[in-house]
Amino acid sequence: MADVSEISPRDRAMTIQAKNQQPPVVTLLSKYLDGEYHPLKEDLRQFIRNNKLFNMEYSNLNLQEQRYLAHERAKAILRHPKCKNQLDEQVRGSLDFMKKNLILGEVFAFVDPSTNVKLGVMVFLFGGAIINLGSAAQVQKWLGPLKDLQYTGMFAMTERGHGSNVRCIETEATYNIENEEFIINTPTRSAQKMFIGNGLHGEYAIVFAQLILHNKSKGPHAFIVPIRNENGLYPGVTVVDLGLKEGMNGVDNCLLSFDHVRIPREHLLNKYADVLPNGSYVTDILKDSTRFNIMLAALIGTRLAVANHSTACMSVGLTIAIRYAHSRLQFGPSNKQEMSIMSYQTHQIRLMPLLAKYLSLYFTGRQVASLVDDHQTSGGSIATNREIQALASGIKAYASWACVQTMQICRECTGGQGYMAENRIAGLKGDVDVFVTYEGDNTILLQQVAKELLVQYRKEYTKGKFSGMLSFLTKAIVVSLQTSSLIPRMHSITSYTFQTNALEFREARLLQTLASRLANKVQKNGMDSFMAWNECLHHLNALAMSHVERVCYEQFVIAVKQCPYPGPRSMLAKCCKLYGLNCIYSDRGWYLEESFINAKMAKCIRTEVLKLCKETAEFSLEIVNSLRIPDNCIHAPIAGIGHDNTSWLFAPGADSNTDIRMKSKL
Amino acid sequence: MADVSEISPRDRAMTIQAKNQQPPVVTLLSKYLDGEYHPLKEDLRQFIRNNKLFNMEYSNLNLQEQRYLAHERAKAILRHPKCKNQLDEQVRGSLDFMKKNLILGEVFAFVDPSTNVKLGVMVFLFGGAIINLGSAAQVQKWLGPLKDLQYTGMFAMTERGHGSNVRCIETEATYNIENEEFIINTPTRSAQKMFIGNGLHGEYAIVFAQLILHNKSKGPHAFIVPIRNENGLYPGVTVVDLGLKEGMNGVDNCLLSFDHVRIPREHLLNKYADVLPNGSYVTDILKDSTRFNIMLAALIGTRLAVANHSTACMSVGLTIAIRYAHSRLQFGPSNKQEMSIMSYQTHQIRLMPLLAKYLSLYFTGRQVASLVDDHQTSGGSIATNREIQALASGIKAYASWACVQTMQICRECTGGQGYMAENRIAGLKGDVDVFVTYEGDNTILLQQVAKELLVQYRKEYTKGKFSGMLSFLTKAIVVSLQTSSLIPRMHSITSYTFQTNALEFREARLLQTLASRLANKVQKNGMDSFMAWNECLHHLNALAMSHVERVCYEQFVIAVKQCPYPGPRSMLAKCCKLYGLNCIYSDRGWYLEESFINAKMAKCIRTEVLKLCKETAEFSLEIVNSLRIPDNCIHAPIAGIGHDNTSWLFAPGADSNTDIRMKSKL
Ligand SMILES: Cc1cc2nc3c(=O)[nH]c(=O)nc-3n(C[C@H](O)[C@H](O)[C@H](O)COP(=O)(O)OP(=O)(O)OC[C@H]3O[C@@H](n4cnc5c(N)ncnc54)[C@H](O)[C@@H]3O)c2cc1C
Ligand SMILES: Cc1cc2nc3c(=O)[nH]c(=O)nc-3n(C[C@H](O)[C@H](O)[C@H](O)COP(=O)(O)OP(=O)(O)OC[C@H]3O[C@@H](n4cnc5c(N)ncnc54)[C@H](O)[C@@H]3O)c2cc1C
Repeated sequence: MADVSEISPRDRAMTIQAKNQQPPVVTLLSKYLDGEYHPLKEDLRQFIRNNKLFNMEYSNLNLQEQRYLAHERAKAILRHPKCKNQLDEQVRGSLDFMKKNLILGEVFAFVDPSTNVKLGVMVFLFGGAIINLGSAAQVQKWLGPLKDLQYTGMFAMTERGHGSNVRCIETEATYNIENEEFIINTPTRSAQKMFIGNGLHGEYAIVFAQLILHNKSKGPHAFIVPIRNENGLYPGVTVVDLGLKEGMNGVDNCLLSFDHVRIPREHLLNKYADVLPNGSYVTDILKDSTRFNIMLAALIGTRLAVANHSTACMSVGLTIAIRYAHSRLQFGPSNKQEMSIMSYQTHQIRLMPLLAKYLSLYFTGRQVASLVDDHQTSGGSIATNREIQALASGIKAYASWACVQTMQICRECTGGQGYMAENRIAGLKGDVDVFVTYEGDNTILLQQVAKELLVQYRKEYTKGKFSGMLSFLTKAIVVSLQTSSLIPRMHSITSYTFQTNALEFREARLLQTLASRLANKVQKNGMDSFMAWNECLHHLNALAMSHVERVCYEQFVIAVKQCPYPGPRSMLAKCCKLYGLNCIYSDRGWYLEESFINAKMAKCIRTEVLKLCKETAEFSLEIVNSLRIPDNCIHAPIAGIGHDNTSWLFAPGADSNTDIRMKSKL
Repeated sequence: MADVSEISPRDRAMTIQAKNQQPPVVTLLSKYLDGEYHPLKEDLRQFIRNNKLFNMEYSNLNLQEQRYLAHERAKAILRHPKCKNQLDEQVRGSLDFMKKNLILGEVFAFVDPSTNVKLGVMVFLFGGAIINLGSAAQVQKWLGPLKDLQYTGMFAMTERGHGSNVRCIETEATYNIENEEFIINTPTRSAQKMFIGNGLHGEYAIVFAQLILHNKSKGPHAFIVPIRNENGLYPGVTVVDLGLKEGMNGVDNCLLSFDHVRIPREHLLNKYADVLPNGSYVTDILKDSTRFNIMLAALIGTRLAVANHSTACMSVGLTIAIRYAHSRLQFGPSNKQEMSIMSYQTHQIRLMPLLAKYLSLYFTGRQVASLVDDHQTSGGSIATNREIQALASGIKAYASWACVQTMQICRECTGGQGYMAENRIAGLKGDVDVFVTYEGDNTILLQQVAKELLVQYRKEYTKGKFSGMLSFLTKAIVVSLQTSSLIPRMHSITSYTFQTNALEFREARLLQTLASRLANKVQKNGMDSFMAWNECLHHLNALAMSHVERVCYEQFVIAVKQCPYPGPRSMLAKCCKLYGLNCIYSDRGWYLEESFINAKMAKCIRTEVLKLCKETAEFSLEIVNSLRIPDNCIHAPIAGIGHDNTSWLFAPGADSNTDIRMKSKL
């Protein structure tokens, strides 16, 4: 019914812009965002664009079909040379393993979250565990065939009874001297391994179990347990399909249980501890709890991957919602054309702070990956670097919550259209919701961050000089903590100085007050330390969040300053200021309580946030277009990218602007 | 694998308590919550409990099966005498129509949101439109067969091009004098009716179209348009299935378009305006915009229904999450039993403010229903009562956002289990998400509330005396607006006086400053009023939300005071204080800006909120159990109610507490 003449010039411009000719500022911004890995990224994006397998979308598929599609996509990706290489590079300890991981993770996240998670579980989670917890011989033995997809893996840590509290898992691995075997057993219902991904396909699982020697547990250790081969399940193994989930339905999550399953002694991953044939336990790390923490810590790569996955999904949602916001017209001044919904103040303040947050996370993710690479290539191990661990945990929590919030707002901002599965956001929303829970529940991760900050604070406080994650704690800040009026009022609220000081002050203050509250409870009042900790959980979480926000802001500022192109730089600078100021605005109750700002400043901050939202909205389309997400990954009609299979598709432009004719009759 | 000996005494107590013997306080609270309609509610709950149709759950059904089930359930409910009567009562204008509507809506919301919406669309939306917009003769003709389910209806207002901006819809109803017919036509693609519920089944639709006489539109009017009968679609009608959505998949939403569909003149709903056979237009309401507003306003019953639906869904989510929180153990002090997650401060502060908000909305919904009934039985019409309209819009927005937020938090609080479809929350989350969008997008509704507050303020300001929705504006408050220090600091922050004053002050202050900002922009600076309005959207929304919160708090206080049973009353009182104080706490930035509180008070408020969360958590299980949601409506294994069809079900108690044995080996 619609013909081309119904398309308004504005919308036509947008559609073309989105598809072909990008203005120079978009090209430059895109180049800067891609950074040193531009060729790799372009390569991968082209691979996705050209592969029909990635065109299909989930919304019309049933559970089995979704799983099949995710599996096929994962295999296609895993066969891509750049992806296959990644495991080798990890083994070799290549100079930029994490940075490349980030790129791969980001681009494949665009395809769909299930595919990304599925391929992660099949190969990287399993392979990563072996690389991090296994001996050189184990790596040698297991990695080659995995890389060639001769088998795929699973990662079985969580149990029905114990998710966050991994230390208390109940699965048992009892050593049997006679056959030099471990007996893997599920003693109770609550010991069943739960939510295990790739459960219907994987040939082997890394199973975490209490290592039992002489009837006593040495704590959780990781074992390679065969689950199935072409002839069926391994004797003693039971697998139950957990069925439909809120999202991630391309991933097959299962319940695994073990009835005295026998595995060779060599299947204990023995980098940090081993059991000799005679049943004696050997380890360099004497304390059970230290050993346990190191084992878990070795897995932080996947935590960073979840953070990056969250960030990438944010960009897909924002691209759809922002494109729609620029093309959807609704209401207007009397007798004039209707206005785009992007021009409404509420729409700006719903979407723009999230776009800014996305950018901050994007740059921070890249920076953390560099940090890890640098640390590892200089001979360090992330397993013992608690600072990086805390950062990874914090960013995972912050990014995944930002992602969930973004999807919700994108859904609401796209009205009824956003509720239709065809427009992608609904499905993404269900998928990303699990990010806040798996690879460490966010609430627990924040506690880890706070704990690490406290440890460092206590350690360095006596020295009077802070380094590492607390290196921002300069004399000026420490002094100001006593007086609460550090910030000379002469800095403009949009200056980096003001914003940096504000975020540093908050973190330092929350840390200092938390340390003294805990000390008070435990040392003065003799409270049990577990109980004292629990009485401060709210405070702890606030501290951890403020730490992550400070880091993200710092990284954003660095990224702005390093941008060599004036046009993109000034766009990024606006977004960065919006990010910083909005962090302060959202927590202005706290800043006012601490007299860091006064009432007049608080009001100015609100006015400025609204202004920055309006200004960033004006070039928001350029920003999302510069992300260069392949069209077949966006596949949302309301973002201007139709499907073959939808008779009712809505492309922006095709439908608007006809009301002008109608109005003449009103 | 689990046997009874594995169940801890605590969990066993809980399971029994949830199922059979309730402590007296639960019975009394339940009685008070049900109120005067206790027998009706008990009747309906029993009907649901006893009907196998309501046992099945959606998670294993495909789109067609979900639709079929919702349809069958809707029919079963509509045949229930109490439900059938409702349409008669609406026609007769019974004394308590709205109150009963609320009860029916609440109880059937428990079944599943799709069923509730489906039955609403089939009968009540269509029937309501006829009752509100049709003449007595039209009501007479159409209602009987509808009630007997001889046909079902649809409600077709939204178009592809116009959702929120209904005035600009493009569907045309052109009068043809010769045949005394209207020609219903879809002139452009953007004029297609979109998202229309019951689209694959309904025989008739209420279609909103521009009434065109002599080539000029009289604005949108409602028409009854035949869509299909047993022989197929009516000539000229096209229906396209919109397929899968984020949720509400039991409801079949479609695209409808009309190619010169002919309908008799008598199919114009003509209570407020009519077209005579000779083509002349007759109406008592001369202004097009007034007539349009009255027509829309007549439909506010459905807006209240969405608010109540949101509230009811909150209670289902909270019941599941709170039961799980009391039974799920995770972590604990060393060498002691693990603690329930409900005992963690973060868990308390995530869930308890929402439980309190739920209760405030529950009481407010009941009160608004009474208000409508009283107004109508005293001869008033809600179509012209802008105060009630604004209240309905505000509560719809507030309740639906509260519901979406609640489902998200309940999902996160139930960890990985909450992500499994079997545990119900995931599905509910997708369903309720549409509440923020349909029956008026929340952002638009808040603008209506603010507009009405401004109208009343301007009207009454000159008189110096406020009534209706502004009757709280006493002299004391008006004076304090100038000085910003109304509240004598002697009232305790947990007192009703302090909390009431705080909420009233905020509303009054936001209203006063908004009025003067707008006046400044328009009168002083000569800005276009549409543009001035848009520059204040953020302020407008804050005002509208503060209005609703003030009203909800007031109603909660009244409900506490009226509760005759001491035990339940003191529980409700705590929740009410938590609700009020948390409203203030969440907006403490604003209160500090306005010097309504000082920094010291702000800190006390946080401490008190945390304390109230802890105290309410202790009896939160009693509260959710007193809601008496039928087990077959909860059907979440983690809430202690298993399914027949899940081999891996998780019932609280069945799995916990085995770690004590294990720990001895650690
Ligand atoms: C789709 C999906 C895929 C998964 N894939 C895998 C996999 O492949 N392999 C694997 O091993 N696991 C997997 N998991 C499991 C996942 O890692 C766990 O769900 C996660 O660790 C949380 O554990 P839980 O679900 O038992 O929640 P719990 O730990 O029971 O937590 C429940 C709630 O209590 C709160 N809580 C708990 N303790 C505290 C505390 N001390 N203080 C404050 N709050 C607390 C939490 O914040 C949470 O809200 C998967 C999960 C899902 C949903
Ligand atoms: C599942 C479902 C069932 C439905 N059933 C029916 C039905 O049976 N019958 C029927 O007639 N309709 C139905 N609807 C349609 C529904 O009422 C509309 O989706 C709703 O009115 C919003 O309109 P829209 O989707 O066009 O969004 P738009 O009005 O285009 O709004 C899009 C976004 O822009 C924002 N926005 C728009 N204008 C402004 C402004 N002036 N200021 C600030 N922000 C603005 C909104 O807040 C929103 O976020 C249904 C919708 C759904 C999703």
